[in-house]
Amino acid sequence: MKQRVEQLAIFGGRPLFETGRHVGQPNLPDTSHLLRRIQSVMDSGWLTNNGPQVRAFESRVCDMLKVRHCIAVCNGTTAIQIMARACNLTGEVIVPSMTFIATPHALEWIGLKPIFADVDPVTHTLDPDSVVAAITARTTAILGVHVWGNPCHTDRLQAIADTHRLRLLFDSSHAFGCRINGRSLGTFGDAEAFSFHATKIAHTLEGGVITTNSDELADRCRRLRNFGITGLTEIDDAGINGKLSEVAAAVGLTILDVFPSLVCQNAANAETYRTALRDCRGIRLAASTADDGGNSQYAVATVDESEFGLSRNELVAILRAEGAFARSYFSPGCHRAAPYRDDMSHCPVPLPVTELLLQSVLQFPTGRAVDQQDIWKIAHVVRFTERNSAEIRTRLTASGALQYSHADDPAHQAPQRREAA
Amino acid sequence: MKQRVEQLAIFGGRPLFETGRHVGQPNLPDTSHLLRRIQSVMDSGWLTNNGPQVRAFESRVCDMLKVRHCIAVCNGTTAIQIMARACNLTGEVIVPSMTFIATPHALEWIGLKPIFADVDPVTHTLDPDSVVAAITARTTAILGVHVWGNPCHTDRLQAIADTHRLRLLFDSSHAFGCRINGRSLGTFGDAEAFSFHATKIAHTLEGGVITTNSDELADRCRRLRNFGITGLTEIDDAGINGKLSEVAAAVGLTILDVFPSLVCQNAANAETYRTALRDCRGIRLAASTADDGGNSQYAVATVDESEFGLSRNELVAILRAEGAFARSYFSPGCHRAAPYRDDMSHCPVPLPVTELLLQSVLQFPTGRAVDQQDIWKIAHVVRFTERNSAEIRTRLTASGALQYSHADDPAHQAPQRREAA
Repeated sequence: MKQRVEQLAIFGGRPLFETGRHVGQPNLPDTSHLLRRIQSVMDSGWLTNNGPQVRAFESRVCDMLKVRHCIAVCNGTTAIQIMARACNLTGEVIVPSMTFIATPHALEWIGLKPIFADVDPVTHTLDPDSVVAAITARTTAILGVHVWGNPCHTDRLQAIADTHRLRLLFDSSHAFGCRINGRSLGTFGDAEAFSFHATKIAHTLEGGVITTNSDELADRCRRLRNFGITGLTEIDDAGINGKLSEVAAAVGLTILDVFPSLVCQNAANAETYRTALRDCRGIRLAASTADDGGNSQYAVATVDESEFGLSRNELVAILRAEGAFARSYFSPGCHRAAPYRDDMSHCPVPLPVTELLLQSVLQFPTGRAVDQQDIWKIAHVVRFTERNSAEIRTRLTASGALQYSHADDPAHQAPQRREAA
Repeated sequence: MKQRVEQLAIFGGRPLFETGRHVGQPNLPDTSHLLRRIQSVMDSGWLTNNGPQVRAFESRVCDMLKVRHCIAVCNGTTAIQIMARACNLTGEVIVPSMTFIATPHALEWIGLKPIFADVDPVTHTLDPDSVVAAITARTTAILGVHVWGNPCHTDRLQAIADTHRLRLLFDSSHAFGCRINGRSLGTFGDAEAFSFHATKIAHTLEGGVITTNSDELADRCRRLRNFGITGLTEIDDAGINGKLSEVAAAVGLTILDVFPSLVCQNAANAETYRTALRDCRGIRLAASTADDGGNSQYAVATVDESEFGLSRNELVAILRAEGAFARSYFSPGCHRAAPYRDDMSHCPVPLPVTELLLQSVLQFPTGRAVDQQDIWKIAHVVRFTERNSAEIRTRLTASGALQYSHADDPAHQAPQRREAA
């Protein structure tokens, strides 16, 4: 435990963790179950192209979410693209900037123009008033993001979409297994796209799914996933290869077998963070706005610099030096990423809440990356930092230690044993 | 063996094969080796995002092809797209219509306009003169296809590209392991895209690679594969998720371990088809124009209806009824697929050779789908059909049997045991 400021790793002290504790540490399938499934895939010789594992995986998702259709695809970005093309979107699509860059980039890649709207300070999801302000004659859709698993304002967004005759889609990458008023995310709007990337609570290594209750959209998504092929030789649509392999689907099935226990683990971690950081000045743990705390995939907190005495960036740097690889998603914001930063027309409305969140939100390691003791240790450092914030800031300023290096942290991947790299 | 026309399965006779012999039957990795590799991936916890398996796979491809860079991606379509975006292509790209639909669709998906040029009657690859005729002020690239592993006219296409200041790219989906004048395909033009789909000689279930000798293009492709991310939080490019998982790369490594034996198997099959169909009137086995017969991934033949007495489509229908699932790639031709068929501007030059090939080329089952005896049986049916072509045509016309069903044949996938479906 740190007792003096110079014991902080950022000032040369011994790090709290010898091996890093990462946000998005992959959940692992039960290996013996997985290898048996893979063996059966190899025995069948059916390795991809809508085989039995993919269909079982899609069925399982439908059952879990109580949604009519699930279309498994090779990743979440492809899910957004196929969903958007299935809806014949053109022109502008309204999205939050408070999202992973895949949301706007998926659209940009296929020639759609992402328009950034502001978010709500409580849920961090699209602010319906800001969405209305961003609508133009070129708008064809709203793409909401259930960030941290917090449900978007689905009713208000649907009303806006109806009024303006827009498609309503969701990027539900964070929201697998989350519900609102008893209804699963994945069943709202015209269609929703989930990521099943390794860093998500349930995954297929790389992968994603589209869910929809529309038979017509589901058919089109399936066609677009397989090059628009409709027969042995007939090609009736301009599709791509969006297919998920049988082995990837087998990973998904094996992880979904234990999904409830993964949610429990996350929920226990969230509860411990809340307890351990209760009454820490300037730190507020964000409560999930989904039913029953959602999937607790992210342990999100906001730092109030005026109370905490240090900025979010300073706290993140301190924690990372300790081996607690906190993140500052999605700073600096999609609207500051290439190519959007060079074209102001992507930002027709002010983004004051987004700007505030981009400076103040952080994510603590959770999931399989930490045990309860780790969380207490991380909370200790946070509290210690708050109590000594004035001295720390003076030293940080003097040492230039804030120019921390992330060279050892491959973005969005958290290998358990870094020496394996 | 068939002795009377009514014994042909298309007329109700017993099919030659109880379980289908498919074109593109997946090659299987050695399962015990594969499972060990997958176990080690799971043990490491590093499931995707440029991990050790992906890097080893890329290295292996570089060594095999003697190319400077290999960028592994989630499928061949994505490989074409990332390669095209890395080259900043705009406007029109000249491609053959004699290719799988993925070639033009990959471009169309990202807003580029495929322009179809004709092919050479011997190699079935782009005819340089036709390419020149198709160039306009909007052309930014030529995308050749080494179809059946036959090398494009690389020197002439490079000269044209240089003269007109165009990028030269290749879709090398059929051509892994093929060489011309001792140099591997994958090393020509600005960059080349390979498919590692399950139906290809070497595969990663779903997957693809980009190969290039350009450091600059390789860097950009790597960035575009991972959302344009250049640091922990910096996003300097409009990329997507094009990543291949560690498990998929492990499949690739395990198959590449036995790659030479797969080529040998194909070469032996090709030799048997040639022997068994020698002097069969109206059937000409296409010889590979790559060094040493290339990878012999496809057993390609042309049917001369005037000599054979029946059309290619009639022969394919007869063979398919027997359980020898011959294909007629790429009939009816990309220029007759949606959306290109509705816009004549995709076809500014005549495509006489393409049209002829689309009506006369077929692919016999090869690879692991057949043994030597199977090939002799298939050849027997072909010869029997030729000898009895007049009677068969009369019966076909009378019975309407040519309206054959392909419902049991999922396009581009050939499960070994169909009952598993």
